[in-house]
Amino acid sequence: MKRIYNFSAGPSTLPVEVLEKAQKEMLDYNNSGMSVMEMSHRSSFYDDIHKEAKKDLIELMGLSDDYELLFLQGGGSTQFAMIPMNLLDKEDVASYLITGSWADKAYKEAKKFAKPEILASSKEDTYTYIPEIKEEEMDVNSKFLYLCVNNTIYGTRIAPEKIDKLTKPLVADISSNILSEKYDYNKFDLVFAGAQKNLGPAGVTIVALKKGLIKEAREDIPTMLSYKTHADKDSLYNTPPCYSIYITGLVAKWIKKMGGVEGIEAINKEKAKLLYDFIDNSKIFKNNIKVEDRSLMNVVFVTGNDELDAKFVKGAKEKGLENLKGHRTVGGMRASIYNAMPIEGVKALIDYMKDFERENR
Amino acid sequence: MKRIYNFSAGPSTLPVEVLEKAQKEMLDYNNSGMSVMEMSHRSSFYDDIHKEAKKDLIELMGLSDDYELLFLQGGGSTQFAMIPMNLLDKEDVASYLITGSWADKAYKEAKKFAKPEILASSKEDTYTYIPEIKEEEMDVNSKFLYLCVNNTIYGTRIAPEKIDKLTKPLVADISSNILSEKYDYNKFDLVFAGAQKNLGPAGVTIVALKKGLIKEAREDIPTMLSYKTHADKDSLYNTPPCYSIYITGLVAKWIKKMGGVEGIEAINKEKAKLLYDFIDNSKIFKNNIKVEDRSLMNVVFVTGNDELDAKFVKGAKEKGLENLKGHRTVGGMRASIYNAMPIEGVKALIDYMKDFERENR
Repeated sequence: MKRIYNFSAGPSTLPVEVLEKAQKEMLDYNNSGMSVMEMSHRSSFYDDIHKEAKKDLIELMGLSDDYELLFLQGGGSTQFAMIPMNLLDKEDVASYLITGSWADKAYKEAKKFAKPEILASSKEDTYTYIPEIKEEEMDVNSKFLYLCVNNTIYGTRIAPEKIDKLTKPLVADISSNILSEKYDYNKFDLVFAGAQKNLGPAGVTIVALKKGLIKEAREDIPTMLSYKTHADKDSLYNTPPCYSIYITGLVAKWIKKMGGVEGIEAINKEKAKLLYDFIDNSKIFKNNIKVEDRSLMNVVFVTGNDELDAKFVKGAKEKGLENLKGHRTVGGMRASIYNAMPIEGVKALIDYMKDFERENR
Repeated sequence: MKRIYNFSAGPSTLPVEVLEKAQKEMLDYNNSGMSVMEMSHRSSFYDDIHKEAKKDLIELMGLSDDYELLFLQGGGSTQFAMIPMNLLDKEDVASYLITGSWADKAYKEAKKFAKPEILASSKEDTYTYIPEIKEEEMDVNSKFLYLCVNNTIYGTRIAPEKIDKLTKPLVADISSNILSEKYDYNKFDLVFAGAQKNLGPAGVTIVALKKGLIKEAREDIPTMLSYKTHADKDSLYNTPPCYSIYITGLVAKWIKKMGGVEGIEAINKEKAKLLYDFIDNSKIFKNNIKVEDRSLMNVVFVTGNDELDAKFVKGAKEKGLENLKGHRTVGGMRASIYNAMPIEGVKALIDYMKDFERENR
């Protein structure tokens, strides 16, 4: 069996022991005589999987009893519509911090259903930093401040200490750094994350929101896009993406085994420090992100020469270090080092970068 | 390893060889060094899986070049909204044939976004038959006739020969009998199927629609609920449910190996005939469905005595014949014998029914 180090930004690498467990249980889950894929979503076997995954995620996120956690479909892109449809009336204002193209997409989608405003944007600097968050500049009637906490494409994140200082109701996309370091998720009205970056396979989106915000939806909302529909039925209104939830549950158990978010955070910080330190001291690799805004999950770097970048990515692939090409809109390289990327993968990458530097100075 | 005969209505049994292949490839798909769950949806490995699954489904469904086939999320319940949102204006009429609670849900959802009418309903007879389809009674301005071709809960289906006679534009839910017997899918403007009954795991919905119907969406439609969004990007506008599509692709290959729809239909008809013949000649089991409307996929039966029904279901479970309890709204028993249920499973069920009959007459 071949295994590579997969630096993909998402879908992305999963813990090997999770895959091994799924492999073992593929034809017979827990002596049920069935694959999890074959189980009725109304069966007691599946019900246990569903409840356990939910319980573990709530525990890992440290959510209080004020929160409901949902398993939905449609990815973050569907949340861009569900958030204004469920939390805003047509004339309501909400404030968006534009830290990348995903935040921008969320803002544009919200314009279909309400009156969002842009609080600040770093677009003119290709999103290389997080704009200062001046809550006092929000429209006085603004219902919430929307944030994309980690920006996969640009390699930035809003640090926990910046969020701790905020006082307004917050709604956030945490797809690419959920459970990677300690955030106080109880500070948010709503957070959501597509599983396919740091939690599991594509096809399930985690939404955690304050129970008080779950109410009868606006009449123009499809039943399936109302949070209440799903909250009332514990995410079993219709058939959920059972297998994706099962794998997400296995990943949650793995995080707990690694010492929870605290344990994972320590490893993630070590991984990121190794890589950023190497880049900052390198003669050919550069990272242009403002230091305090650097993502722990997505480390972007360039040589400044497109041909050399391409050579780097090609050579890396030959060494089993894959998916290091930067997003097509920004070029260069990107190493996504999510929770499941072992430190050995980061060290192997740095070793290759050293060799490459020596040969290409 | 234990394997049972799983008569669940959905999610439901999958071909063992599909599960075995998925198991084998779990940690390393095709020498990629990755699980399919870990692959970027923009990678060439995944692209091949995506395109191949699409091609095979189009081929198996016999769709002409006039059709686009999409992989979407959100299940049939999301299609209940997407259909009127994309195919109708707010004042447009469409006609719904109410053959069960799923058709009824589709009709009710359509009322939010357009002006659907009920053409006919068999609700007063607990949906035990398919109402005669009188197209001439449709509103003259009706844009399409909506059908639920197979009714999982009630064990009915609209036979292919009935559909062949229709002349109006048709839109249909084919979730529970897609690719189980030969239908001319080119007669439909749009068909959709949640994968979790006859195609694969929950989490992906197949939609096939005429390309001419794909147009700029109404302004009040979320981007993710517009068919055009997904058609323009070959179902890769955002991260698709890659693993569910992969398994669906494996199931499509398996159907081809079984001789395509013709091969599967022959087996399905044999399975259904064995079971219906036994029931019709039984002293204690009854099926109340009008013979011409009987489903090949979901065979419902009762003893007429709730206690005896419960005893039957319990005893079946002990023999490894599981999920035979009828839907909670109708009671009794239901054997879902989808494509992946081997004829040996049906024979084992009949053997048990014979024993049960002998012991409980």
